[in-house]
Amino acid sequence: MSQLLRFEGRAADALRPIQFELGLSKYAEGSVFIKMGETHVLCNASVLDKVPGFLRDKNQGWVTAEYSMLPRSTHTRSDREAVRGKQSGRTQEIQRLIGRSLRAAFDLTALGQRTIHIDCDVIQADGGTRCASITGAWLAAALAVAHLKRTEQIAADQKVLLNQVAAISVGLSQGQAILDLDYVEDSGCGADVNVVMSGSSQDPQSLRMIEIQGTAEGQVFSRAQLNQLLDYAELGAQALMQAQSHVLADQKILY
Amino acid sequence: MSQLLRFEGRAADALRPIQFELGLSKYAEGSVFIKMGETHVLCNASVLDKVPGFLRDKNQGWVTAEYSMLPRSTHTRSDREAVRGKQSGRTQEIQRLIGRSLRAAFDLTALGQRTIHIDCDVIQADGGTRCASITGAWLAAALAVAHLKRTEQIAADQKVLLNQVAAISVGLSQGQAILDLDYVEDSGCGADVNVVMSGSSQDPQSLRMIEIQGTAEGQVFSRAQLNQLLDYAELGAQALMQAQSHVLADQKILY
Amino acid sequence: MSQLLRFEGRAADALRPIQFELGLSKYAEGSVFIKMGETHVLCNASVLDKVPGFLRDKNQGWVTAEYSMLPRSTHTRSDREAVRGKQSGRTQEIQRLIGRSLRAAFDLTALGQRTIHIDCDVIQADGGTRCASITGAWLAAALAVAHLKRTEQIAADQKVLLNQVAAISVGLSQGQAILDLDYVEDSGCGADVNVVMSGSSQDPQSLRMIEIQGTAEGQVFSRAQLNQLLDYAELGAQALMQAQSHVLADQKILY
Amino acid sequence: MSQLLRFEGRAADALRPIQFELGLSKYAEGSVFIKMGETHVLCNASVLDKVPGFLRDKNQGWVTAEYSMLPRSTHTRSDREAVRGKQSGRTQEIQRLIGRSLRAAFDLTALGQRTIHIDCDVIQADGGTRCASITGAWLAAALAVAHLKRTEQIAADQKVLLNQVAAISVGLSQGQAILDLDYVEDSGCGADVNVVMSGSSQDPQSLRMIEIQGTAEGQVFSRAQLNQLLDYAELGAQALMQAQSHVLADQKILY
Amino acid sequence: MSQLLRFEGRAADALRPIQFELGLSKYAEGSVFIKMGETHVLCNASVLDKVPGFLRDKNQGWVTAEYSMLPRSTHTRSDREAVRGKQSGRTQEIQRLIGRSLRAAFDLTALGQRTIHIDCDVIQADGGTRCASITGAWLAAALAVAHLKRTEQIAADQKVLLNQVAAISVGLSQGQAILDLDYVEDSGCGADVNVVMSGSSQDPQSLRMIEIQGTAEGQVFSRAQLNQLLDYAELGAQALMQAQSHVLADQKILY
Amino acid sequence: MSQLLRFEGRAADALRPIQFELGLSKYAEGSVFIKMGETHVLCNASVLDKVPGFLRDKNQGWVTAEYSMLPRSTHTRSDREAVRGKQSGRTQEIQRLIGRSLRAAFDLTALGQRTIHIDCDVIQADGGTRCASITGAWLAAALAVAHLKRTEQIAADQKVLLNQVAAISVGLSQGQAILDLDYVEDSGCGADVNVVMSGSSQDPQSLRMIEIQGTAEGQVFSRAQLNQLLDYAELGAQALMQAQSHVLADQKILY
Repeated sequence: MSQLLRFEGRAADALRPIQFELGLSKYAEGSVFIKMGETHVLCNASVLDKVPGFLRDKNQGWVTAEYSMLPRSTHTRSDREAVRGKQSGRTQEIQRLIGRSLRAAFDLTALGQRTIHIDCDVIQADGGTRCASITGAWLAAALAVAHLKRTEQIAADQKVLLNQVAAISVGLSQGQAILDLDYVEDSGCGADVNVVMSGSSQDPQSLRMIEIQGTAEGQVFSRAQLNQLLDYAELGAQALMQAQSHVLADQKILY
Repeated sequence: MSQLLRFEGRAADALRPIQFELGLSKYAEGSVFIKMGETHVLCNASVLDKVPGFLRDKNQGWVTAEYSMLPRSTHTRSDREAVRGKQSGRTQEIQRLIGRSLRAAFDLTALGQRTIHIDCDVIQADGGTRCASITGAWLAAALAVAHLKRTEQIAADQKVLLNQVAAISVGLSQGQAILDLDYVEDSGCGADVNVVMSGSSQDPQSLRMIEIQGTAEGQVFSRAQLNQLLDYAELGAQALMQAQSHVLADQKILY
Repeated sequence: MSQLLRFEGRAADALRPIQFELGLSKYAEGSVFIKMGETHVLCNASVLDKVPGFLRDKNQGWVTAEYSMLPRSTHTRSDREAVRGKQSGRTQEIQRLIGRSLRAAFDLTALGQRTIHIDCDVIQADGGTRCASITGAWLAAALAVAHLKRTEQIAADQKVLLNQVAAISVGLSQGQAILDLDYVEDSGCGADVNVVMSGSSQDPQSLRMIEIQGTAEGQVFSRAQLNQLLDYAELGAQALMQAQSHVLADQKILY
Repeated sequence: MSQLLRFEGRAADALRPIQFELGLSKYAEGSVFIKMGETHVLCNASVLDKVPGFLRDKNQGWVTAEYSMLPRSTHTRSDREAVRGKQSGRTQEIQRLIGRSLRAAFDLTALGQRTIHIDCDVIQADGGTRCASITGAWLAAALAVAHLKRTEQIAADQKVLLNQVAAISVGLSQGQAILDLDYVEDSGCGADVNVVMSGSSQDPQSLRMIEIQGTAEGQVFSRAQLNQLLDYAELGAQALMQAQSHVLADQKILY
Repeated sequence: MSQLLRFEGRAADALRPIQFELGLSKYAEGSVFIKMGETHVLCNASVLDKVPGFLRDKNQGWVTAEYSMLPRSTHTRSDREAVRGKQSGRTQEIQRLIGRSLRAAFDLTALGQRTIHIDCDVIQADGGTRCASITGAWLAAALAVAHLKRTEQIAADQKVLLNQVAAISVGLSQGQAILDLDYVEDSGCGADVNVVMSGSSQDPQSLRMIEIQGTAEGQVFSRAQLNQLLDYAELGAQALMQAQSHVLADQKILY
Repeated sequence: MSQLLRFEGRAADALRPIQFELGLSKYAEGSVFIKMGETHVLCNASVLDKVPGFLRDKNQGWVTAEYSMLPRSTHTRSDREAVRGKQSGRTQEIQRLIGRSLRAAFDLTALGQRTIHIDCDVIQADGGTRCASITGAWLAAALAVAHLKRTEQIAADQKVLLNQVAAISVGLSQGQAILDLDYVEDSGCGADVNVVMSGSSQDPQSLRMIEIQGTAEGQVFSRAQLNQLLDYAELGAQALMQAQSHVLADQKILY
């Protein structure tokens, strides 16, 4: 489908190999180590028996996230944010995105007065860390909800997660659309769009957009190009949701 | 075109009244006070004879922005960020967006080794402050470039600004697309998309996307809905570029 | 009266043109945009239904202020305090002064358990910003008190503001006293005294001092010189109080 | 002279017992432990072979100060500023005042490209700590200058300190002027004026004002009252300068 | 040897199972994931071509470390230090200890003008994280030195690492000495001693102490008890050094 | 006993002259100015009628400490931590040590729901400031407890302090053990061990260890050397406890 040369002959519309490892952190109520190619993110979901101040006595729960990159997750070492004394603008932007994206899948009232706090720590970064974080975080959240049901804190038949959430990056490289950019492709591409989608792996028609963040620094893009990118993003999101569903099926979890 | 009731009978695809006031800050090389309805943002462009460290000896310039809301620009008073000791994640996200958007219009090499630093201070907020900031900031930047030409720091025939930049919000309110949301519409809407476009007021075919930031918290949206929203955004962006051009024409400035 | 050459032939004991613009911020309970020559400060008074912790259950209110300069209010751009992560010593010193000065005019018990929080944001700075802030802040506070009476939160005949407050700078330039220094005069002068006075525009005998802050860096001053400076300051304060009274009369407000 | 009852029968125009202890810190180039009654401040002057950035290559020196109160210098323990993570507005205001006051006495060019950095640490506080800091800091600075001359870094006959500096508080208590307020008097007084004066102990006519900071929170004051307060302040400043001179004479130092 | 009941019947003088996983972070010059029982720490060594300011032009290198715990490495979630805006005192204490301990093994001159910066990130915590960090960090540093030799930045026969470094905790539980405490034992024990030792796995006589940090909060300990604890610590350190040596031998690395 | 040349011919196992000055801060419930040679630390104990949050409703008290060095307590001036905006890692490490050490001597239940907060401010530093702080802090705490008994807040016969606490440094200088290192010895020594001991001046057999912190940066030490160092530390601790007891006896205080 493509003349463009990608690493290991990957097709323009192909995802990198995806893998979910469960239980890396034995204490977390949901622990998912997601690997998309060489991008590896540990997504730990914690169940906290409290809600933020602005939700006090509102009879609902909350879902939020934090994001961080280990200093040497990247080619060259970056400063540790705890040492610099604050999170960068990029970090805050990403963790706000993860939180918003997950909340779009939750019935917060059904969750009850508790918080699911998801920590996304990037162990190794090769592009697409925010998307991998979202896709992994949804699975970690699903495991945490399953934990709440297994421990009978929430009734087994209560619908808490309304749908799946997966995120993927698409971009224009030398004018051509490509799916799931690695670090080299991301650095070189003209336009970069991150798409967060909701839906169900069992129904391709169910795909909807939660977030779309498209950026062109220097190379602008047309409506037609955007549409091709979104076609690819839908392909990717469907595949990711299927992978999520396989993991849950293996664990005999109905979300 | 719309059954939806908007303030003062505004049509679904209508912008609020737009107004540009120049020179509110007499020291700034470009000073634009943009009013979109009751949203008022002071955009001051400063020319600095230096570039950030990462551009040293790279023989090019830089364009960046900062954003802030006066504590009482909103219905109820917000804390001052300088008192809290840091900019919020939202503030950083917005000012990074403004900077990226403007850089997409600049030939940074033609700018020379200087920085155009644009301060967007929201005096009154009624929805759409980030979009108004971008639209006003482009005009302030154009005035600053004109200043550089008038003072012969840049040759009069040097092309520095490659195109216009304008931004507008669109959203879904009760399932229907609307353009240029005010605060009440923004708070109530299900999906909210900010679109930054490049182009020229003289050529409607020239419109391209620089940034698209679409967010649904709770109410997801389909590809078809996104396309309708983008149709409206294009209408809005064109009108804003025409308004920008009128101001420059009045000032006898060719950008 | 003076051989000293001032901008546009201003007399040594003359104020710059003064102007009060109301309602620039439509949400604030009192919004005054004060212009003293080219020094322009937006003073927004917010009524908050709470008091600081140290006044809890003390059955009284509080008046406080914050001060900030827009980055490009000055000839060259200054860093934004929210970016640097803290307010400078100068900023804190000024906002403490504004708060203290206003409190000297208030019957805090009559105010009830609420706070009047005044934000003084300097849009353009040409010397004397702290004095303009105080003079404008008093008027904004008076408008906020009028709002409280109009909305019947405070009885119409309750005396809340006990007197007027105005502030003015005086200084020694080449050994000669001058009133209301602009930026160039302020930078060049040997001694600089800011005087905050209370009183009533209707009774010149009522003038008293709330604050006097005199500073000589390098050029010290005698008791005789101080007395001449204070004579000028009284002239200025009276004229400012008359201007405040005209605005209130126009609005049919009895303070 | 006074019907007002002061601690231990002190007269309205009397200073508290004043004492200067030298060398408490053996490393400082000038170390003065000043005691004014129960207010005790350690003033250590350090000579640094560098100047702040804004003075680089300006061929002059600098004098600056920092101020701090030990947490238990007061009746009840206050938080430590290093723990809170920043200096309070009050602290910054005071240390800026000390620095400005001392610079008024220095020929900064004669000082050469070095900084005299004075640390004023309040060991015990009973009112008037900023004034005691200034009076003690001047003496510490004089010792540091003497050290520079003794070690032949500055020529013995070079005039570096142009005059003496001393500071004293005066206030109105129940309408009556008093000199050198202790903590109880300071808390209860209606108006509080800190006066920093320059001059020479050998010539009472030489007294001039460097700084005057008068504050009335609630109780305003008239010109006549201010004049009486300044009369007292002059008495106090003269006595303090004589005490400074005695110390220097004992040390056989000509300033 | 012991009546005390430990998890899974562990003897009082037995280490938990130890495991070193290499290359978890493919970018780091040395990447060691150390597991001591359920305590898992990722130790990434980065080679930086710079030294801290205080070593400029001193013709030597530097070794330093940073330490962090993932928020959900523990039983209950802890706040993220980057969000709180600073590293805790405990974190700083530990990372200073790791750095000092490693430097005791290095010939910093032989290292040349570069820094080995080791990031110890605790993925899962079950007691003894600081000791595991040191033991893993030494191995990561050895791999980084091997990398420098393999890439011919340092001569293959240059001795850079002078000896091995390993650390282990010992403690008194109900008055009895135990080795390598897990979280439950650590929380319950009366005295807790962390011992960092240098030496060589090939020569038990070579063991020396680099650091000893013994703490009794409430239950003090005698010289005799300390000596028994140190006997155990020596046993543990020797076993850890043997494990380190096996890894290096597998990699055919001579340190 | 020693060939090593120490300042003023001090023996290897000799303490510097020790002196306790009481009441330097008249407001503190216990104020001890400890001088060990040229190391001078002011230890002020404050009694606070509150406990930290984690002890609320636990029916016990707390003992904690803060530590700071005056900027010019050292040979060259150091930055003030309040200006830098945070306490250094070293400072936090030391104040945590002081707090832990004192708590080992307290029956916190007998103390009741109050906090003894000890501020250790180093006025002059010549090595061993953390040890002097601990030894002085214990005495200040004992005075504060005596104050609580004298004011009948605690019954006179209630045992609150269970034993004495004293700390001392020992080190290896050119391979030889020395006691109570001054700054020059500390900088030059190979291994440095701080030992905090509990016990009673009346019973040499009662000495136990609370903390031992031994550090070798570059020069490691053997078990035999450690034992000799601890012999010296015991000598020193006993002498310090006797000195503490003399002060209490002079004050007729039974701890």
